[in-house]
Amino acid sequence: MAEQLTKEEILDAAEQVLRRFGPEKTSVVDVARALNISHGTIYRHYPSKASLREAVAERWLHSIIQPLKKVFKKECSSTERLLLWVETLIGIKHSLVKEDPELFSMYTSLAEESVDVITAHISELVGQIIPIVKEGMANGEFKSADPETAAKGIFIATAKFHHPAHAKEWASPDIDAEFRMVWDLILSGIIK
Amino acid sequence: MAEQLTKEEILDAAEQVLRRFGPEKTSVVDVARALNISHGTIYRHYPSKASLREAVAERWLHSIIQPLKKVFKKECSSTERLLLWVETLIGIKHSLVKEDPELFSMYTSLAEESVDVITAHISELVGQIIPIVKEGMANGEFKSADPETAAKGIFIATAKFHHPAHAKEWASPDIDAEFRMVWDLILSGIIK
Repeated sequence: MAEQLTKEEILDAAEQVLRRFGPEKTSVVDVARALNISHGTIYRHYPSKASLREAVAERWLHSIIQPLKKVFKKECSSTERLLLWVETLIGIKHSLVKEDPELFSMYTSLAEESVDVITAHISELVGQIIPIVKEGMANGEFKSADPETAAKGIFIATAKFHHPAHAKEWASPDIDAEFRMVWDLILSGIIK
Repeated sequence: MAEQLTKEEILDAAEQVLRRFGPEKTSVVDVARALNISHGTIYRHYPSKASLREAVAERWLHSIIQPLKKVFKKECSSTERLLLWVETLIGIKHSLVKEDPELFSMYTSLAEESVDVITAHISELVGQIIPIVKEGMANGEFKSADPETAAKGIFIATAKFHHPAHAKEWASPDIDAEFRMVWDLILSGIIK
């Protein structure tokens, strides 16, 4: 139990130190100092500076997408649920950038240092779209297709609105109209 | 006529100097020196360093998309033409990155310095999709809709494969399969 507590405490401290000094200047020694422990204690939990940064990024990515859970509790059609899920994800990302662009950029750079962290994050997100797509196929709203392929397609086709590489474009006054253009295509396609 | 020639010559020289020294270290004086003229002569054509960089970026963006023209000459269905257009654009961008990632990154940063240059480039590209969409609507392959909205939607939904912010992802072994997932959605949508 103490073990568990300490891991979270280390991440809390690492997060504070990273926010204060920035990723360039943050060392494991700084984090240890903030906790008043030896850096050896940190290395027992996180064998390298990289693994500590990775754990901070992982926890942040996991925490920011918690509001997506509410989408699964709503009584609505699958088409509405799919839109609600995508709009909730977009809303989360856009608010984070609006509130504190530097902090958002710091966390996304930390995450981009680790392919595994990014891959796990995308899998978690696509993994949430899949049941919505399956639900819609089962109730006859959506065409039959491979649910995972469809879910990935939806995730990638909406990248402009949630992928951090586009964060600077989210302040555009056209962004909502642009999302609508993409969403209409995803729903109906262009072929007759 | 000499005026015309000189503008192109200035851009050629600016391009060479930018490639050699990089955007950080390139000054108008360096470009003038390469041409063996006074920097005043350059300022007569390009009133600021920014406008010179903008012109270089603009010419580069315009030149790289020339291969798209061949798409309009092919005898094929509108669905095939649309795919050919998007695949040609993606092919151009991916080869440029593969051939010389630093150079691609230099030109895209230059372009990103000017909202006008980016806006004009996107308008040029979307402006090429519109007639293909119109053609498909006229011959009954595509559903009736606003052609401009559909064209923009197609352009944005495929951003992961041609927007320079995703250049690092283009080397992924999954990229072609991912494009297929998005393309199937664009063509057919998910709604029954």
